[in-house]
Amino acid sequence: MSLSIDLNCDMGESFGHWKMGNDQEIMPFVSSANIACGFHAGDPGTMRSTVAFALANRVALGAHPGLPDREGFGRRKMAASPTEVYDMVVYQMGALAAVAASQNARLHHIKAHGALYHMSQDEDIAQAIIAAVVDTGPSLIMYAMAGSKLAEMAQLAGLTVASEVFADRTYQDDGTLTSRDRANAMITDIDMAIDQALQMIQDGTVTTVSGKVIPVKADTLCLHGDQPGALQFAQALRAVFEDEGIAVAPV
Amino acid sequence: MSLSIDLNCDMGESFGHWKMGNDQEIMPFVSSANIACGFHAGDPGTMRSTVAFALANRVALGAHPGLPDREGFGRRKMAASPTEVYDMVVYQMGALAAVAASQNARLHHIKAHGALYHMSQDEDIAQAIIAAVVDTGPSLIMYAMAGSKLAEMAQLAGLTVASEVFADRTYQDDGTLTSRDRANAMITDIDMAIDQALQMIQDGTVTTVSGKVIPVKADTLCLHGDQPGALQFAQALRAVFEDEGIAVAPV
Amino acid sequence: MSLSIDLNCDMGESFGHWKMGNDQEIMPFVSSANIACGFHAGDPGTMRSTVAFALANRVALGAHPGLPDREGFGRRKMAASPTEVYDMVVYQMGALAAVAASQNARLHHIKAHGALYHMSQDEDIAQAIIAAVVDTGPSLIMYAMAGSKLAEMAQLAGLTVASEVFADRTYQDDGTLTSRDRANAMITDIDMAIDQALQMIQDGTVTTVSGKVIPVKADTLCLHGDQPGALQFAQALRAVFEDEGIAVAPV
Amino acid sequence: MSLSIDLNCDMGESFGHWKMGNDQEIMPFVSSANIACGFHAGDPGTMRSTVAFALANRVALGAHPGLPDREGFGRRKMAASPTEVYDMVVYQMGALAAVAASQNARLHHIKAHGALYHMSQDEDIAQAIIAAVVDTGPSLIMYAMAGSKLAEMAQLAGLTVASEVFADRTYQDDGTLTSRDRANAMITDIDMAIDQALQMIQDGTVTTVSGKVIPVKADTLCLHGDQPGALQFAQALRAVFEDEGIAVAPV
Repeated sequence: MSLSIDLNCDMGESFGHWKMGNDQEIMPFVSSANIACGFHAGDPGTMRSTVAFALANRVALGAHPGLPDREGFGRRKMAASPTEVYDMVVYQMGALAAVAASQNARLHHIKAHGALYHMSQDEDIAQAIIAAVVDTGPSLIMYAMAGSKLAEMAQLAGLTVASEVFADRTYQDDGTLTSRDRANAMITDIDMAIDQALQMIQDGTVTTVSGKVIPVKADTLCLHGDQPGALQFAQALRAVFEDEGIAVAPV
Repeated sequence: MSLSIDLNCDMGESFGHWKMGNDQEIMPFVSSANIACGFHAGDPGTMRSTVAFALANRVALGAHPGLPDREGFGRRKMAASPTEVYDMVVYQMGALAAVAASQNARLHHIKAHGALYHMSQDEDIAQAIIAAVVDTGPSLIMYAMAGSKLAEMAQLAGLTVASEVFADRTYQDDGTLTSRDRANAMITDIDMAIDQALQMIQDGTVTTVSGKVIPVKADTLCLHGDQPGALQFAQALRAVFEDEGIAVAPV
Repeated sequence: MSLSIDLNCDMGESFGHWKMGNDQEIMPFVSSANIACGFHAGDPGTMRSTVAFALANRVALGAHPGLPDREGFGRRKMAASPTEVYDMVVYQMGALAAVAASQNARLHHIKAHGALYHMSQDEDIAQAIIAAVVDTGPSLIMYAMAGSKLAEMAQLAGLTVASEVFADRTYQDDGTLTSRDRANAMITDIDMAIDQALQMIQDGTVTTVSGKVIPVKADTLCLHGDQPGALQFAQALRAVFEDEGIAVAPV
Repeated sequence: MSLSIDLNCDMGESFGHWKMGNDQEIMPFVSSANIACGFHAGDPGTMRSTVAFALANRVALGAHPGLPDREGFGRRKMAASPTEVYDMVVYQMGALAAVAASQNARLHHIKAHGALYHMSQDEDIAQAIIAAVVDTGPSLIMYAMAGSKLAEMAQLAGLTVASEVFADRTYQDDGTLTSRDRANAMITDIDMAIDQALQMIQDGTVTTVSGKVIPVKADTLCLHGDQPGALQFAQALRAVFEDEGIAVAPV
């Protein structure tokens, strides 16, 4: 059986006259795009051109809803209620779905952005995100951190779930990511990051910061398009995947 | 053949903690609701509850997209390009469509709000609005001022068009509304407004400010829910329509 | 020595075409107004007319800065950094100060709004708010919950502090307010609320939910203008204060 | 008598996580900065750091108020009323003044941004901007296009006015700029732009597109920091000014 992995990346994060990200450079290397929907980033015009560019690159379209906080780029946790989260996810998914429909395309997946992604560790918030997808786009694949509450609950709710892993972040023994506050949170060495990616995909395991080897389910690997060296990393990753016979394709 | 008219009214114009309009009182009297989509008014939660309330009253759901100007309530004309208008209409229609879908319902029509409604006198803007509907919701009915460029162009583009008339506004000989700057723009007498409505529906004509009788196509009549006496007017109108055997139903 | 108390109330919470609050009715009964500065509520025009109305009623002008969250009315806690809080307070104080200056008036005090008020229990956030006042308006009086970290730290920083108390909220033995989650958080009986106000002003004590009598410093009493019966309560309070010889005046 | 010119440039146009402009590179070459105030661009944190950077470069601080249209960067004309314009200018000036005050500095001038700058061709709008300055910061210098209604009216109102000229734009016989719609609107050749600058400063004239030489008052020259080659042009201009003995200093 041949191995396959999805490479996802946040896209369409410009806003009005402000540009952000390297969509032009990174898009050709990924298989799925998480497209900002106008709350934390993006705007109707940016969404249209990002969808068009993704389609031109045969990249799967994903909704990337965030908190209504442009100034903080959706990265500041907010005491939004589960109902407010449900509503904001429905709204943003719908807006992007219409942009896709206007180009004869459909959404493929959904991935919560930034603080909303992290807030889904709260079960009520997770349930709100899941309900929004169940109620408006039950065929959409839920991208969720491998081993997370959200992944487990979404599966129970009948959604298809893609387990997301990170090549450039270290893992704790309990399968969670090392907090960014810690010095050893990031893997900045490209070779080490690639090794971790291969181990996760080929062996279904990851070696934690303590040296323990734990199981991890790797359906989709997250690329950070806005980091220095993002393009080089994407290129190197694709080259190694090709050597190893790992296909890159949407979940 | 029995006569029928649609009664439409703007709904869902609250925002966050701010309330606006008399949706609770007016909804039972109308047949179609133009629901604000979050740009000039409304927000995801208000959209959800407004859709639910419209459905509970068997009122048809319409998207009511506006300019991105909450502070001005979408009433200040803005030099938005046709492409920007296209994008903002697609986005807002999609957002509301998802809210409707989450309640197992579909959109019935679209009506541009405020300054955007008036900006559609520009052919490029009209074309942008039409293209947005054609590309994302070609089955939606376009509500457009009777005799307007938008009405004509939408029909040519293959959309179903509902000609909108006003009971409480006076008309010029060329079929346009008298500008609000003029003293005689509004018909504040309820009986006169009802008479004008009946004439438009039953005879297909309206008597202009100069006394001329001109033809007018009346598919849908606009109620202003936020005006003093809106409820009384709606009630009186429904009573007269019942007496006259005029059905009230969505287009 | 005669007793005196300040009555403060949030004002200017309308936004664009949306109205909120009973400023017209409540203003004559208070001695200081906390005026929204455009982030959680208010807008430049509302600020201008609110300042004018406060001045016409000889009511002291206070800046009421909030989180940049109109949709949540500044009531949703947000993970804003101390630097971000410093910046948003400076900005909002400055905007209102200019509106006041345009009417030949000056700001008298500052009171943080909603979630920002509560976030000041965090010492870093409290320090940020204090620094903003020290750096831009050191003569402004800081309104802070009686016995709070903010009150203590502001005093240490050299600011004049007004200890704020609540007539319609119950107190815990440690001097904090009973959480709104609890059934006994609110005092809805007008007479009981007035009794509590008198005790705080005349005796400098409050009786807690457990029956204990603890000291409390009462410089300013907060009225909630948006609650049902707000006007009646304000009138009753003023009448009792007059009977008891308690002057109502800004701090 | 020695000649002197002010070089002004728009600064602080980043927003949240989005960066814009070359403030770091351009600031050392200008004498006055037009700092975005949070409506069309900028935010409280960006304003703080921009003020600090300007002060470090001994550059004069100017308020650069714009329309409340982040998505359109304040470049889309909007049907804002004179009262709305007055209010938005007071608000933005005040916000920036407080940021300056927090760094022990004061504002030096005001220049309207983008569509607001152009809307000031309407006398009512010009009057509103002027009144805002008169009422809140009468010592601020009004930057206005040379020969414009705004310049004339501001002077009549008692404000100090700085006549603004452009090195890289061509002029019509009536002293207005050639519309950007025209092919010959821009002067892209650096030497020609420098020649035009010198002629305006040294001779007080400009040669129009028709070849006519007309008088022009040059107090401040506008640099466009976001254009390709902005740094090179600024450097070249400063070098030529030094050769010619033209001092660069705030008005």
